[in-house]
Amino acid sequence: MDRQLSQQWVYQFGEGDGTMKALLGGKGAGIADMTRAGLPVPPGFTITTAACNATIAANGAFPTGLWEQIKVALSEMEQQVGKRFGDPANPLLVSVRSGAMFSMPGMMDTILNLGLNPATCDGLTLLTDNPRFAQDAYRRFVQLFGKIVLGVEGSRFEAILDEFKGHGPAARADTDLDAEELATITQRFKAVIQAQTGTLFPDDPYEQLNLAVGAVFNSWNGKRARDYRRVNKISNDLGTAVNVQAMVFGNMGNDSATGVAFTRDPATGEAQIFGEYLINAQGEDVVAGIRTPQPLSTLARVMPDAYAEFADIAHRIEAYYHDMQDLEFTIERGTLWMLQTRTGKRTAPAALKIAVDMVAEGLIDPATAVRRIDPHQLDQLLHPVIDPEAKRTNKALASGLAASPGAASGIIVLHPDEAEQRAKAGEQVILVRNETAPEDFHGMAVAQAIVTARGGKTSHAAVVARGMGKPCVAGCGALSINEAEQTIKIGTTTLRVGDWLSVDGTTGEIFAGQMPTVEPELNADFTTLMAWADEFRTIGVRANADVPHDAKVAREFGAEGIGLCRTEHMFFEGNRIDAVREMIVADSVEARRAALAKIEPLQHADFVGLFEVMDGLPVTIRTLDPPLHEFLPHAGPEITLLAHKLKITPRALRAKIETLREANPMLGLRGCRLGIMFPEITEVQARAIFTAAAECQARGIVVKPEVMIPLVSTLEEFHLQAELVREIAAKVMAQTGQTIDYTVGTMIELPRAALTADEIATEAEFFSFGTNDLTQTTLGLSRDDSGQFLPLYVDQLKLYPADPFQTIDQRGVGQLVEIGIERGRKTRPSLKVGICGEHGGDPDSVAFFIRAGMDYVSCSPYRVPIAKLAAAQTALGELARDK
Amino acid sequence: MDRQLSQQWVYQFGEGDGTMKALLGGKGAGIADMTRAGLPVPPGFTITTAACNATIAANGAFPTGLWEQIKVALSEMEQQVGKRFGDPANPLLVSVRSGAMFSMPGMMDTILNLGLNPATCDGLTLLTDNPRFAQDAYRRFVQLFGKIVLGVEGSRFEAILDEFKGHGPAARADTDLDAEELATITQRFKAVIQAQTGTLFPDDPYEQLNLAVGAVFNSWNGKRARDYRRVNKISNDLGTAVNVQAMVFGNMGNDSATGVAFTRDPATGEAQIFGEYLINAQGEDVVAGIRTPQPLSTLARVMPDAYAEFADIAHRIEAYYHDMQDLEFTIERGTLWMLQTRTGKRTAPAALKIAVDMVAEGLIDPATAVRRIDPHQLDQLLHPVIDPEAKRTNKALASGLAASPGAASGIIVLHPDEAEQRAKAGEQVILVRNETAPEDFHGMAVAQAIVTARGGKTSHAAVVARGMGKPCVAGCGALSINEAEQTIKIGTTTLRVGDWLSVDGTTGEIFAGQMPTVEPELNADFTTLMAWADEFRTIGVRANADVPHDAKVAREFGAEGIGLCRTEHMFFEGNRIDAVREMIVADSVEARRAALAKIEPLQHADFVGLFEVMDGLPVTIRTLDPPLHEFLPHAGPEITLLAHKLKITPRALRAKIETLREANPMLGLRGCRLGIMFPEITEVQARAIFTAAAECQARGIVVKPEVMIPLVSTLEEFHLQAELVREIAAKVMAQTGQTIDYTVGTMIELPRAALTADEIATEAEFFSFGTNDLTQTTLGLSRDDSGQFLPLYVDQLKLYPADPFQTIDQRGVGQLVEIGIERGRKTRPSLKVGICGEHGGDPDSVAFFIRAGMDYVSCSPYRVPIAKLAAAQTALGELARDK
Repeated sequence: MDRQLSQQWVYQFGEGDGTMKALLGGKGAGIADMTRAGLPVPPGFTITTAACNATIAANGAFPTGLWEQIKVALSEMEQQVGKRFGDPANPLLVSVRSGAMFSMPGMMDTILNLGLNPATCDGLTLLTDNPRFAQDAYRRFVQLFGKIVLGVEGSRFEAILDEFKGHGPAARADTDLDAEELATITQRFKAVIQAQTGTLFPDDPYEQLNLAVGAVFNSWNGKRARDYRRVNKISNDLGTAVNVQAMVFGNMGNDSATGVAFTRDPATGEAQIFGEYLINAQGEDVVAGIRTPQPLSTLARVMPDAYAEFADIAHRIEAYYHDMQDLEFTIERGTLWMLQTRTGKRTAPAALKIAVDMVAEGLIDPATAVRRIDPHQLDQLLHPVIDPEAKRTNKALASGLAASPGAASGIIVLHPDEAEQRAKAGEQVILVRNETAPEDFHGMAVAQAIVTARGGKTSHAAVVARGMGKPCVAGCGALSINEAEQTIKIGTTTLRVGDWLSVDGTTGEIFAGQMPTVEPELNADFTTLMAWADEFRTIGVRANADVPHDAKVAREFGAEGIGLCRTEHMFFEGNRIDAVREMIVADSVEARRAALAKIEPLQHADFVGLFEVMDGLPVTIRTLDPPLHEFLPHAGPEITLLAHKLKITPRALRAKIETLREANPMLGLRGCRLGIMFPEITEVQARAIFTAAAECQARGIVVKPEVMIPLVSTLEEFHLQAELVREIAAKVMAQTGQTIDYTVGTMIELPRAALTADEIATEAEFFSFGTNDLTQTTLGLSRDDSGQFLPLYVDQLKLYPADPFQTIDQRGVGQLVEIGIERGRKTRPSLKVGICGEHGGDPDSVAFFIRAGMDYVSCSPYRVPIAKLAAAQTALGELARDK
Repeated sequence: MDRQLSQQWVYQFGEGDGTMKALLGGKGAGIADMTRAGLPVPPGFTITTAACNATIAANGAFPTGLWEQIKVALSEMEQQVGKRFGDPANPLLVSVRSGAMFSMPGMMDTILNLGLNPATCDGLTLLTDNPRFAQDAYRRFVQLFGKIVLGVEGSRFEAILDEFKGHGPAARADTDLDAEELATITQRFKAVIQAQTGTLFPDDPYEQLNLAVGAVFNSWNGKRARDYRRVNKISNDLGTAVNVQAMVFGNMGNDSATGVAFTRDPATGEAQIFGEYLINAQGEDVVAGIRTPQPLSTLARVMPDAYAEFADIAHRIEAYYHDMQDLEFTIERGTLWMLQTRTGKRTAPAALKIAVDMVAEGLIDPATAVRRIDPHQLDQLLHPVIDPEAKRTNKALASGLAASPGAASGIIVLHPDEAEQRAKAGEQVILVRNETAPEDFHGMAVAQAIVTARGGKTSHAAVVARGMGKPCVAGCGALSINEAEQTIKIGTTTLRVGDWLSVDGTTGEIFAGQMPTVEPELNADFTTLMAWADEFRTIGVRANADVPHDAKVAREFGAEGIGLCRTEHMFFEGNRIDAVREMIVADSVEARRAALAKIEPLQHADFVGLFEVMDGLPVTIRTLDPPLHEFLPHAGPEITLLAHKLKITPRALRAKIETLREANPMLGLRGCRLGIMFPEITEVQARAIFTAAAECQARGIVVKPEVMIPLVSTLEEFHLQAELVREIAAKVMAQTGQTIDYTVGTMIELPRAALTADEIATEAEFFSFGTNDLTQTTLGLSRDDSGQFLPLYVDQLKLYPADPFQTIDQRGVGQLVEIGIERGRKTRPSLKVGICGEHGGDPDSVAFFIRAGMDYVSCSPYRVPIAKLAAAQTALGELARDK
């Protein structure tokens, strides 16, 4: 008893501060901050989370002292506002809001206008001279209170409202109801509440408040809130705070107004106040768009005093928070009240400009500027976008998955060969397919953008498009392709091959016709920011690049090496695929060697190109990885053609293709298993790498090849392949007289490899985590097939906190990454560790990889700046983004 | 120096004993044991592994004292044998053999007849009066010594031999060469050796011995031996011992002989000596089969004294080892020498009889009897085998994988429907397919045996066949099927549908025609042994059974419950597959519910049947697991038929089938993902389980249902499904008034589930490890596709110590099992943990599961005795089998 009496359950706004989130909740701490900053915030108080916990522990009974403290706080509020709670002559009305430490769905909604009863409602009518306003406020209060506090089903109130408004096209809006009707509705509401709960609707404002606070406390233990906390691993012991705040009204006449504003232009970042307002209106009227709001600049003329005060506050508030703010304000009878301030949302260019400007203004330091940019948003700056103006008139036909950012237009083609022909003839094409396969590579390479009907954000089309920096919309369910008629149908629109199509890979939208795009501009602000990021970050950033062109882009974006070169991507260039197919179809080692002999000089040339571009930087080259089946044609005519080229019967070729067919190719004959079954493949690739390295080195280029063996699950597999690579390297070095500084390492992309990393590290000189495959195997989840249920899992049921192919699953896959690094380094303390999966360019994942102790991340060239920024933010100790 | 001088590097046979394997090697310790047992073993000595290590450490120089100790030991040997090393009058010849602690390929081969030179060779000729014998012995010695000790390529000697023997059909055998030719050949060998090594072939026997011992030591560090040790995790520090033993000869005249014998009949187990011998012959002559050996019983007449001594030794030796022995002996001029004794290999029935008899005889105790039976071998007792007599005349057409044991004959059918029709008509059929799918179930159920051209030991055909206890030969590469002509080709033989075929699933052999089989007989010995096993084992043994018939078999074999009932296997019974397909094709929840309404009563009846059979024992029922695609037809006519039944167009059906097609179905929409996408499926299954349980319980049957959610990767998934099951259970209990004691648990079959077992165990009441899927995901290895490279991996390259789908991969998958159990029990100490993958019936894996702390293993009904025996053996602390 004594302890409880001495405990402070209630804090006036401003009594606490922003550091007290655990006790006051997020909202309460924020309001405390604003109040302390001297802003004109409607007064009020916060009831602590401790009070909530004590009440729950006592089965709903308030702890000793709580109610008394609430009444004391309320009377202070009355003095500040000059109104009295329950006073018909000048009634104080309050809002009651829940506010836990973390914002949480399932918690109690806001109750507005608490304090109204027949007498105070009459008083409000007299004060405002607006019976409709008063009756509507009362109606809203009874409805909210009935539903939220007293637990009456909301539909019962809606039914009564509908009765008055009527149905169908003739139905009236809420705003069409007059004061008398509203009063009748409120009576009906009360009757329903009495029937349902067996008690009269409480008229005593103190009783209203007592019940409302209890209801907020109680909602902390509601099923939805508990479920949410379980899923999000939030402790049940935190409890929720309750905020009680004086109501203010912008609709009390022409000396009242309401508006929203930003302290700087949220679209461009320009340093001037930007906003809109409405005279004699409520906040929701501005949003509802029934009346057209005025630009804020005109307020200076209409209410000069209020405007001056607001402009001053806007500057002060920005200076206080050191960031651009999004403000809500109400002017009640000439008095300005700040209802909310929060960090303002802004476009990517605005974010960049504001951050760099604020450093120049001395408002923030470069570290803060770096923290302030959302790396996800940075993506917008690196790719063209469709002109927003054009989107207003030409609506999207459909949306698919935003699989690779950027926007482009082109004419529709359905086949990669046609794409190549038309592109050669100077046409811009967009390749539209059900899904893509490695054999479509040449068509993808020349297309402006790629659209697929199937597949997720990590499907073949998506991965390749991102690598090439091309827009891609994947998994567009509304798209169907009719090859026979050479048409496509998107939603209800049918288009022909040759028609123009526009694609926005940033949003996933697809448009008919040719839409204008806005090119990205990497201005001085961008360069400044990236230089700051480079200063702060502690992890290396490399790029995944397969061909010299991509490597060049990567280097321009500041990549510090190539973390993954997928040699097989080179297989599709020009007509070398024929030799590759010949190799696959070969029935003997000799025949395979003959085919490989044709491939070797081409691979040699590829590697020369890469080493030239990456002069002085490391280049990690992975030996052949994908299932051989992927390289073979599947359609009848192509099979016939290939059989002819290979001088075998189509029947024999079809049989060979059938032999190579796998039930689960992702878990089949691929990765190092290929090199173990057919050592001559690894041999030829190794020779191409080392002869290229020797040639370049002889020309004065600094080469740092790192040969990487994929899909290793045991030390033995690695040993066999690494030994072969080292043998070839020694031979080439002996032949050329060049001593090449190289390493042989492995991908860690199977759970077993991570679990036995201590063994594998006895021979592997570096690890690169292949988190795409590691995610697939750890979760038992095919990235190609998960599109059927992943949206349900992630968006609706929240069974995964995020798409595990975009953001690494820290609890599961992350454990294996940590285990792999720890065990690998235990055996070989100097082990270099990186990651080359899709997650390498995901900001949240980058933060995890840094904590896990990686030396570098590797991502697609266009994500290098994003990874760098994320790395800098992690190094700076926290991410600026709201979570 | 002092320390080394005082060290004992050499042990006379009998100076050490069987416990000194680390110092004397396995072979040396064994010989020591035999000598101590008083057997007439040719004398000799063992040079220790410590001497090997010291020599290696000194770069090949023998440690101080070693050579002197060897010479002392040799002179003791001379005294024992009555011959002298290098004495032309009566030369002592010795064999030199390596002998490490573990037997190891890549170590030095045996050198025989060391001590021969021109002088002693002449002496041998005089002594034996057999110049050819002496010259051949010399020739062999020079060849072996040249190759093994001096490192001359073996092919050089072969070439010279070939020169003398000639080529082609007219070529002579080694035995056709006469003494003179052999002498010439030996000269030629010496010349080659001199040319290759630059030194004369050593004539001094001491020099020969010195070099031979050094070569054995050196071979410990050879590449092949090092590779083998690395793969098998054998320390490089162990070193090898060297055994030097006096040569004895059974080919010194008619008072000499050589033979092999078992102390009991290895085929039947009958307690009488069983063996064969040859007069005036060498050991290899018995094996070579040029002369026909005589039954040992006749030796009593020919050499009564030697026979009496041998019979006495055989009894003593068996009594000494407490086990049936496989003996090799030589009689040199009337003196009996025991060359080898080792535990005798025996058939399964013999093993059983010997073990039970020996307990009766007081030779061993029941624990030893239980330890003594190889659980793998037990399998032979539980299934019919092809009459061994019949195999002599009718050779197998080809061999595939021994996928499910047992033997059967039947007429060939290619289609499950035809199998069903013919079986109904009373015919015995064998179903021959490229591979099987769930839709073939009805045909498999009526077949005597199943043969497939593709797929491994854990393919669908293999798993289903084992579950049903039917023979299956899978992945028979020599088999090709011609559906159009209704023929099959096996190797070079073409057979027609309707022809007889015989299948031995224990060996993998396939025979043309109808072969007689021998039925298994579970005699009193078997019952006795299983009772002993039940007494010793500490882990529960359940069975995987899907239908009442299998459950009945399981119970008869002593299963203590059902560890896995795959509800989907019931889907193929009768014509209920139509309703299942209707459910799958349904486009709305309503349509799906309508189809499910047809399935529910059938599933209810299934569960009633299971509960009846398993009265009093737990029954674990898994909710729907396989990809839906598996249930749909794929051939044109079947699609048309089904479309007609479902009243949709074939085109629409084909489109639906295409929609459900997955790139990697193993990682796709299956397991609990199905129940989460379509909760109505789980709902109906749960209702069928609980209404069946309630009905049975009302009739006095004791039901213990355990509902198991498959393929869970997060607690959230489990929570959703378990909550649904519990809701339905509560409803059924309320409706029926029956309180059912049930639990809801999960399969742990994804790495993520094992890694987050602590979370999952907050709600899951039991875990059952699905090690099939866990192996697939941990190793990134599809069991359906790995057949292409697994033989290379396991048999040739030893990249995995065993097929990971048969014997659990302890280093990788095993870690996840241990992590899962440890973390699960940390959250819920009472957590019941079992395993229901294929590994549940594998003896090595069972031992691991016991060590890992599991409560039970569950395997196919026919493997229950095997699992029980393995469990008893593990409990007894060691496995009796050689490793």
